[in-house]
Amino acid sequence: MLTQMTITDFLEELGSNSPAPGGGSIAALAGALGSALASMVCRLTVGNSKYAEVQAEVETILAEAEYLSARLTQAVDADTEAFNKVMAAYKLPKATDEEKVLRSQAIQQAMQQAANLPLNVAECCLAVLNMAQRVLIIGNANAASDAAVAGLMAHAGLHGALYNVKINLASIKEEPFITAMQAKIQTIVSRDSQLHEQLLRNASKMIG
Amino acid sequence: MLTQMTITDFLEELGSNSPAPGGGSIAALAGALGSALASMVCRLTVGNSKYAEVQAEVETILAEAEYLSARLTQAVDADTEAFNKVMAAYKLPKATDEEKVLRSQAIQQAMQQAANLPLNVAECCLAVLNMAQRVLIIGNANAASDAAVAGLMAHAGLHGALYNVKINLASIKEEPFITAMQAKIQTIVSRDSQLHEQLLRNASKMIG
Repeated sequence: MLTQMTITDFLEELGSNSPAPGGGSIAALAGALGSALASMVCRLTVGNSKYAEVQAEVETILAEAEYLSARLTQAVDADTEAFNKVMAAYKLPKATDEEKVLRSQAIQQAMQQAANLPLNVAECCLAVLNMAQRVLIIGNANAASDAAVAGLMAHAGLHGALYNVKINLASIKEEPFITAMQAKIQTIVSRDSQLHEQLLRNASKMIG
Repeated sequence: MLTQMTITDFLEELGSNSPAPGGGSIAALAGALGSALASMVCRLTVGNSKYAEVQAEVETILAEAEYLSARLTQAVDADTEAFNKVMAAYKLPKATDEEKVLRSQAIQQAMQQAANLPLNVAECCLAVLNMAQRVLIIGNANAASDAAVAGLMAHAGLHGALYNVKINLASIKEEPFITAMQAKIQTIVSRDSQLHEQLLRNASKMIG
């Protein structure tokens, strides 16, 4: 498992000439790093009497951050597995007409999974960005730059994941699937744009 | 060392109630991940006859990516060490006037180092972003989304690092140091803005 590797070994594996792990896993990892940072900011706020008014809200955010961190960490490995399944489908035999049909179906099925997975990553990243922009303004002010970085990581993870959705969509033939995915992408992009702007505004207020 | 931890353990440590590691280390890690991804795209291009025309340029980019990846990986640990030195300086005795002066000097020195380090990280991230937007357009088209994610990680790492510079600058008293740093920040931000726009343009051309 990729997430059981040391950071140094993971970076070496990432930089190697093997196409997996690639950008999809890194997008998920960016989201997981953002979510963990948001957790830290929550923990540095909970129990601090200076922030007594926001305890309940920050505790709710912390629970959500923990959940998203776990989901995004799983996605680091899952994205690479989904990519490997696409590669395996391409290697199926194509000598007979029947084999060609089966291979094409297997590729399409693997591609849809490889597109669904980063879409889920993008949705999780959107939730992390929302938490980050909020704890940046209500959380421990000493951790303001940490909350800001959490938001930047989520924003980068979101767009990285969407590039992975789009590149897989290019090989998918089922029109209703493509249309549905494109609508979801639009919704995510539009909400991300608002939240990212809010993050930068809050960061400028808190950090300068 | 943080970089010798597994990714799972690192995420757990990051999310804990200890302020270190924090956003500074994550900004450096984002840059290192971007640089390693850029390396991968270069390796998937070098030796491929379809990209014969750009071999020399891609080999140069690969060498730079390896160098930057190593520097940014070191910075993951170095940023947390710099933060710990600031914390240690704050804990120095302040019973006598002489102790107060020595403590204040130690804090200022540690703060300047804690501001210099993320500035270097931001400069390295800028170089990674430049490489990413270039290999996205000239490198192996099958790895276009990987190059795009590399650029997004570098862009996020850069701004994350600059938040860490700014938050430390707020505690620094030496005016010429502040002025010099602010000028450097401006230069980096302006160049990042051009390169990020270029990255998005290239990504839209290659991915859609």
